[in-house]
Amino acid sequence: MNRHVYLHNTELKKAFSTWLNAIVDAGVEFPLPGEYVSVLESLGRVTAEDIFARVSSPPYVSSAMDGIAVRSDMTAKASESNPVRLKIGEDAIFVDTGDPIPQGFDAVIMIEDVNEAGADFLEVIKPAHPWENVRPIGEDIVESEMVLPVFHEIRPFDVGALLNAGCSQIRVVRKPVVSIIPTGTELVEDPTGAGEGKAVESNSHVVSSMVASSGGIPVRLGLVPDDLYAIEECFLKALESSDMVVMNGGTSAGREDFTARVISAHGKVVVHGVGMKPGKPLVLGVCGRVPVVGLPGFPLANFRAAEEFVVPLVRRFLGLEQVRSRKVEVFLARKVFSSIGFEEFVQVKVGRVGGRLVALPMKRGSGVLMSLVRADGVLRIPSEVEGYEKGKKVNIEIYGTDSDIEGNILVVGSHDVSLDILGSFLHRKYPRLKLASAHVGSIAGIMALKEREANVAGVHLIDPETGEYNIPYVRRYLENEDFAIFRFACRTQGLIVKKGNPKKITSVEDLARSDVIFVNRQRGSGTRILCDLLIRNRGMEPSLVRGYENEVPTHTMVAATVARGYADAGLGILAAAHALGCDFIPLAEERFDLVLLRDFAKTEGFLAVIDVLKSPDFKKRVESLGGYDLSEAGEPVILE
Amino acid sequence: MNRHVYLHNTELKKAFSTWLNAIVDAGVEFPLPGEYVSVLESLGRVTAEDIFARVSSPPYVSSAMDGIAVRSDMTAKASESNPVRLKIGEDAIFVDTGDPIPQGFDAVIMIEDVNEAGADFLEVIKPAHPWENVRPIGEDIVESEMVLPVFHEIRPFDVGALLNAGCSQIRVVRKPVVSIIPTGTELVEDPTGAGEGKAVESNSHVVSSMVASSGGIPVRLGLVPDDLYAIEECFLKALESSDMVVMNGGTSAGREDFTARVISAHGKVVVHGVGMKPGKPLVLGVCGRVPVVGLPGFPLANFRAAEEFVVPLVRRFLGLEQVRSRKVEVFLARKVFSSIGFEEFVQVKVGRVGGRLVALPMKRGSGVLMSLVRADGVLRIPSEVEGYEKGKKVNIEIYGTDSDIEGNILVVGSHDVSLDILGSFLHRKYPRLKLASAHVGSIAGIMALKEREANVAGVHLIDPETGEYNIPYVRRYLENEDFAIFRFACRTQGLIVKKGNPKKITSVEDLARSDVIFVNRQRGSGTRILCDLLIRNRGMEPSLVRGYENEVPTHTMVAATVARGYADAGLGILAAAHALGCDFIPLAEERFDLVLLRDFAKTEGFLAVIDVLKSPDFKKRVESLGGYDLSEAGEPVILE
Repeated sequence: MNRHVYLHNTELKKAFSTWLNAIVDAGVEFPLPGEYVSVLESLGRVTAEDIFARVSSPPYVSSAMDGIAVRSDMTAKASESNPVRLKIGEDAIFVDTGDPIPQGFDAVIMIEDVNEAGADFLEVIKPAHPWENVRPIGEDIVESEMVLPVFHEIRPFDVGALLNAGCSQIRVVRKPVVSIIPTGTELVEDPTGAGEGKAVESNSHVVSSMVASSGGIPVRLGLVPDDLYAIEECFLKALESSDMVVMNGGTSAGREDFTARVISAHGKVVVHGVGMKPGKPLVLGVCGRVPVVGLPGFPLANFRAAEEFVVPLVRRFLGLEQVRSRKVEVFLARKVFSSIGFEEFVQVKVGRVGGRLVALPMKRGSGVLMSLVRADGVLRIPSEVEGYEKGKKVNIEIYGTDSDIEGNILVVGSHDVSLDILGSFLHRKYPRLKLASAHVGSIAGIMALKEREANVAGVHLIDPETGEYNIPYVRRYLENEDFAIFRFACRTQGLIVKKGNPKKITSVEDLARSDVIFVNRQRGSGTRILCDLLIRNRGMEPSLVRGYENEVPTHTMVAATVARGYADAGLGILAAAHALGCDFIPLAEERFDLVLLRDFAKTEGFLAVIDVLKSPDFKKRVESLGGYDLSEAGEPVILE
Repeated sequence: MNRHVYLHNTELKKAFSTWLNAIVDAGVEFPLPGEYVSVLESLGRVTAEDIFARVSSPPYVSSAMDGIAVRSDMTAKASESNPVRLKIGEDAIFVDTGDPIPQGFDAVIMIEDVNEAGADFLEVIKPAHPWENVRPIGEDIVESEMVLPVFHEIRPFDVGALLNAGCSQIRVVRKPVVSIIPTGTELVEDPTGAGEGKAVESNSHVVSSMVASSGGIPVRLGLVPDDLYAIEECFLKALESSDMVVMNGGTSAGREDFTARVISAHGKVVVHGVGMKPGKPLVLGVCGRVPVVGLPGFPLANFRAAEEFVVPLVRRFLGLEQVRSRKVEVFLARKVFSSIGFEEFVQVKVGRVGGRLVALPMKRGSGVLMSLVRADGVLRIPSEVEGYEKGKKVNIEIYGTDSDIEGNILVVGSHDVSLDILGSFLHRKYPRLKLASAHVGSIAGIMALKEREANVAGVHLIDPETGEYNIPYVRRYLENEDFAIFRFACRTQGLIVKKGNPKKITSVEDLARSDVIFVNRQRGSGTRILCDLLIRNRGMEPSLVRGYENEVPTHTMVAATVARGYADAGLGILAAAHALGCDFIPLAEERFDLVLLRDFAKTEGFLAVIDVLKSPDFKKRVESLGGYDLSEAGEPVILE
């Protein structure tokens, strides 16, 4: 097949510097020129020159106290035994804090140290030194001094300092205009318009927000289909009025990937393909004097590439240093692999477990934007590194603050929609706390506890021998540990089938029918163990169930797969079936418990979790999802 | 005098909690109710409820590759020796990344693994597994799952996740409206209008910026004079339409301090006077259901009180956690005193000296807003602590990032306007670097080097015995150290007198005239040492110079004091005289050098300083100030 152009694989830093050199060679100057704005509208802008005070602040010698202004030499001999009398309005002038010191006067006596002596006179009993209680002219800043240096980002108090220094208009760096062109025939504008073959265009809004947050002016141009001429027309229009143009999508080498073609038709492609994951299919170029970026279409790749190429250029246009995220040292909870030749970005959740900060690597699919939404930070794996071993100390860049991380309770294990609701109730009542949950399946959750990689494990595991839930597994895997188990919920598992049950599925046995396609859960999950058991108990052969090898990682993905007709049945909880409008054939009641090491049970964080679990509001909310019984929620499970 | 009401001194935390209780008692609910906004305008807003996905993303099963969609069972037996032929359009459908998988198909084969076989057929040579290269429905998020929890501040990528999840309008917390009333008869709106008895109103703009930055809507009401009825009228109007009212100024107990009076006339003053410095004269109250704050008028006190009371309430109205600044452990370079009963806030500059982070406490005057502009962070001294010893390890809250601090070069010593220009040129050429300079006088600068509290000292010290500059002092104070000296500038010192020299001052001797008032520099400064020497060499008696005890800390303050007629003469550099429009009688040429320990001379930071010092642009710029000769700037001073 000849329609492929294999992309190159330029190292990330090299790609940026190559691009930047090409931009400079094209005659672009950094930062952008200045423009005048009112100081009152300068918050967040960047100074384009050194700014000097036009007046002194305070602009006159003033009183630092409420009191009387005096001539200090008149008071030189004042004492308790020899009070000095001063005529009001002549030798003594009442002044409040901030009032100017009248001409000829040189000190202020605090009002507390002044006595009345008839209607027209005052007495003072100690001498005032010259300049005592007097605020000198220019104490804050003197006319001609530098208020702010060039390339300084203006903060709230800088606004005050500028005003005090008599500045009304200042020269700030012009904001770069960044045009963003979303392309893709399958895309729609309306967020409610997604469906078969139609996805919502969201990347351009993320990039716009990133440009705005970094100080640029985003201009989003209308959605353009994958049509070379339409893209070209929009692109040429954007070039005319922009400091940078961003094209979203069409950056790979498929039949309808026109981005590189359009750029090279009107300028130069400098880099096509960058050694980063996600983000590889990236195009960097210059057309005339305008830098151009083609960002990959997958949402996470789109964000990451914008973060590495668009934001740094916006900052450079503004004369600002690159933002360096705060780095935190963490222990990696899992081994991570990485490809040589690619700088890989792995989203992580972070929390404190047993005194040390632990990072859980998250799903890496470049389409999974939610991994970013749910992450606390990102691990960068340099291109020459093949990955890191579990337990390795690494530095990650965090998205929020240290206290965000300290407030995280790491819940690892089985997936349950109600965990998100628990997290929300917890944060509402205890704003400092958040649940950070990772869905890896029940058994992996217990192992994470054992390895000190999680605070709590969400577990629902049926023992095939006894039919007993959770306790046999916890006893086996946490043999030498001091653990505790708390009840979360009893919930109903069953077969999720399409609304109206068109295939008339009524039992596990029906899964073996040749006209029924099944969707399964991943190995190691409690639901998969239950599924295997149900099949085995009926003497059925898993390989004869069509689609038994098709695995998805959550209840809701099972339900969505069934709801949209990609499968006829799957095993999952009633709440997921309800949420996706599916029918449900109940098969088992199971116990979903929270397992933890006893040390953590006494922490403020877990006591807050128990408090929420026991609250009637929370129970009612979860039970309203259907198939949940929370009557024992938050109760310890007593082990004999 | 009976016009005083002594303020109370309520502990800071107690003051906030008392106020908050009163607000809650008045029926105010936190956070504010929600309102619907378009997701496209939701950046930075705070969710008012949990937000769930309305559609799955991706909304359909799609191809994860450019390739052909196939039915996996048709390819089960494909191998190199037994290729399987597929009819294009029937058994094989071309798909690009993101395209939907056609009904009945269940896998995608990468285009690289497909061979052409005539016009209508393709051949594949290995089996496709079910769901291979297929992106499942809801891989990112499934309809019904939680996208964002309640009270979450929306970031750029959250916007994308919301759109992908089919959300177009979301409920966010309404922004609190904060009315700000600046009061003060001496204040003017126009920043260029400052002068005798007229100061620029700046506090309300700082508070407005703070409110806007924390997510509120500031409404600044017109400037109100110190008139009880005018203030009351404006206040009552503000109460009607605000979630909080801030009154700027008039919070003390002077004749014209009406803030507390107005609040208690229409509601309740809960706290008057808080144990914080700066910021003590603070009024907290509630009128009806509206929280009211009266902030002190001195700029630094105004900011600090707003930071501790206004910002936290805005955050609470929004349902957000309080912002906790990043804390950094530093060594205190100087002893700091603090009053028992007051939580004191001391601005500090921070830099790395000899491997450790050092904090230099700055001027504490509550009118000195520039100390905030120039600071890297703030040290909070709890109310029960009397201060800290020099060298003590303390935690400070930093205003910027760690890398801001690491980029600081601490220059401590004598004041020279050209140091600010050096800092600006340095930052322009080396964006990572900044000069953080503290003006403490030449001798203190050398001592700071010795104590490892500064990277560089700016020094101009004449040896009274030999007339030689700097070297004798450095040799004496840094006796056992390995130091280096680099030339900065030669500059002209002389008498600064008013434009036109109305007092006809022509020599040092004239300073002893009874009609001449002098303004002096502080002890320990190089200029003071020169001044003392000039007086002594002429056999004059310092106590006979009128104003000899009036000290200001900078050349420009000397010039400003003279320019505005508060003194007739002072000793300082030509550049300061020029800048303030004064006349100048030259007396001496002196050397301003940079002294440092040799270790620091080799650092990247200092090499950058040398590079800038030697650059013709920089020299030209400083020499244009007048009285500077930079021909030797950046050259090492060779010591025999």
